[in-house]
Amino acid sequence: MMKIAVDAMGGDFAPHAVVAGAVEAAKEIGVGVILVGIEQTIQEELRKHPAARSLPIEIRNATQVVDMHDSPSTVFRRKKDSSIRVANNLVKSGEAVAVISAGNTGAAMATSLFVLGALEGVERPAIAVFMPTIKGSCLVLDMGANVDCKPVHLLQFGIMGEVFTKYLRKNPNPRVGLLSIGEEATKGNELTKEAFRLLKETSLNFIGNVEGRDMMMGKADVIVCDGFIGNVVLKISESVAESIRTILRENIGDNLIRKLGYFMMKPAFQALKRKVDYAEYGGAPLLGVNGVSIISHGRSSPRAIKNAVRVAAEIARSDVNKHIHEDIKRNMELAKIK
Amino acid sequence: MMKIAVDAMGGDFAPHAVVAGAVEAAKEIGVGVILVGIEQTIQEELRKHPAARSLPIEIRNATQVVDMHDSPSTVFRRKKDSSIRVANNLVKSGEAVAVISAGNTGAAMATSLFVLGALEGVERPAIAVFMPTIKGSCLVLDMGANVDCKPVHLLQFGIMGEVFTKYLRKNPNPRVGLLSIGEEATKGNELTKEAFRLLKETSLNFIGNVEGRDMMMGKADVIVCDGFIGNVVLKISESVAESIRTILRENIGDNLIRKLGYFMMKPAFQALKRKVDYAEYGGAPLLGVNGVSIISHGRSSPRAIKNAVRVAAEIARSDVNKHIHEDIKRNMELAKIK
Repeated sequence: MMKIAVDAMGGDFAPHAVVAGAVEAAKEIGVGVILVGIEQTIQEELRKHPAARSLPIEIRNATQVVDMHDSPSTVFRRKKDSSIRVANNLVKSGEAVAVISAGNTGAAMATSLFVLGALEGVERPAIAVFMPTIKGSCLVLDMGANVDCKPVHLLQFGIMGEVFTKYLRKNPNPRVGLLSIGEEATKGNELTKEAFRLLKETSLNFIGNVEGRDMMMGKADVIVCDGFIGNVVLKISESVAESIRTILRENIGDNLIRKLGYFMMKPAFQALKRKVDYAEYGGAPLLGVNGVSIISHGRSSPRAIKNAVRVAAEIARSDVNKHIHEDIKRNMELAKIK
Repeated sequence: MMKIAVDAMGGDFAPHAVVAGAVEAAKEIGVGVILVGIEQTIQEELRKHPAARSLPIEIRNATQVVDMHDSPSTVFRRKKDSSIRVANNLVKSGEAVAVISAGNTGAAMATSLFVLGALEGVERPAIAVFMPTIKGSCLVLDMGANVDCKPVHLLQFGIMGEVFTKYLRKNPNPRVGLLSIGEEATKGNELTKEAFRLLKETSLNFIGNVEGRDMMMGKADVIVCDGFIGNVVLKISESVAESIRTILRENIGDNLIRKLGYFMMKPAFQALKRKVDYAEYGGAPLLGVNGVSIISHGRSSPRAIKNAVRVAAEIARSDVNKHIHEDIKRNMELAKIK
């Protein structure tokens, strides 16, 4: 049975939410879970779940905890026995097939990069996040692993995103778009204009530039951008949705008619919430590393953790990494990059 | 009486919406309006507004029209008698104090830059847009005039944004933030990290990095970013709001209870709509040019055009350009940039 290493100490609601999610995953998904962190703390949490005793759940002790303010370099040098580091080591040694952390994003990402390393041919692994659209969702990458990118990095993000969507989402011919500020090839900044030129040379189903509004309309299945913009876009989208809720709530206030109206409309609001709920997607894979690493949202609920384990298991069972390696090699030749 | 030149041929609903808005402006705001474009077309539109005959409205003929697909360079070379160009010429010659166009954004912006030129000391004029927050609004710049920026450009955007907010919004000490992906000075890309260092040296009330969510929460009054990101952020925000409406509408569907619920909640939705309606803000000033130029939304309604005329008149009556020139000079010295 394949095992997934879960950083039990990472996330705003850890260890409680992480342990609860891991227990559900072990029950439902048919994989083993290795909970990594301070042994005693994890044991106390596990005691709240009597069913856990008969499930394939192990504990691996790690004496240190990474907090939100630790820089990646501090984590490397001073926290070699942290739950994030130990969980990644389990993948490196082959004991686990994947690692999941909802902790400090920068540290989780940098640790996976450092411990697992990049797949051969991949210049920069990237975080891929599913974002909701009115038609379903699209995969956006990079979401923050690389704040300064070269055109060839965006090219590789496109290839990795296509492979992931093809094999994990069973979409045989995903449309790949480049996030820019106009549809024509001449629109954009220096980075995107050169990336456009490279993407056009590849075997990808490249549909050209897409704008913010195209993204929400579901015009592309994969959207490529540098990690700085990707991260800004993710946070803006989350907060626009949240602000709209806040403004509506304030305007409903104590007004009984509006309150009743809200109650009557509730199924529509719930459908909306399901659609924009990151917990549905579980976590964001760090694509391009030699192994499987899932970066989960800091506010991960038990359900989000369970879904992250599901995604991790799916990737581990698939040939995604092999295809990423092969497709990057082939397309780098097509785009004439040595 | 000061006169405002309005490009009557620019915008998705031109000339109808533009002429209607200009008539309202001439009636309510106490300024003269020069409608620029194909004379006969404008006259036909004006005939629909009998009150216009006694208002301070003039027509200036321009034989060419810029369409959405014209590149700025085509407009320069081949459309020297376009409404956008002629309207800008009126400001250059001093006949009008400001120009407004809801047409091709790139052409409108480039024409103002070319015809009016930059204020002394300003390296790159920038488009400043008010974006709604849960507390009111914040001024974001640049929104697309400069897709590739250097740190000193972001510094100047901060200064221009502060001056505008101080003198036009009567906010004596606006908080200026730098759009980035983390609060600490060490977070961001090469561009923002260096811009952070420069902004700290100035007389601005610089509050450091702000993230997407801070923006919506109203943490800053002025937010600085490069024009590529600014444009992406603007379009994403607009389309997230629109997508939420679409998803809710689909989920209400033909369900009578939900429809009734929507009706009962309608005042709350209307309050939300007012808050996110660009028409309230009228248009986006191109700050840093030697004159006043307002870039209006392509979908401008008559009310949006009227509000754009109001904003143009306010800027023309103020000392904003003088202060931009002085504050940039002073702060370039503080930041030790020669």
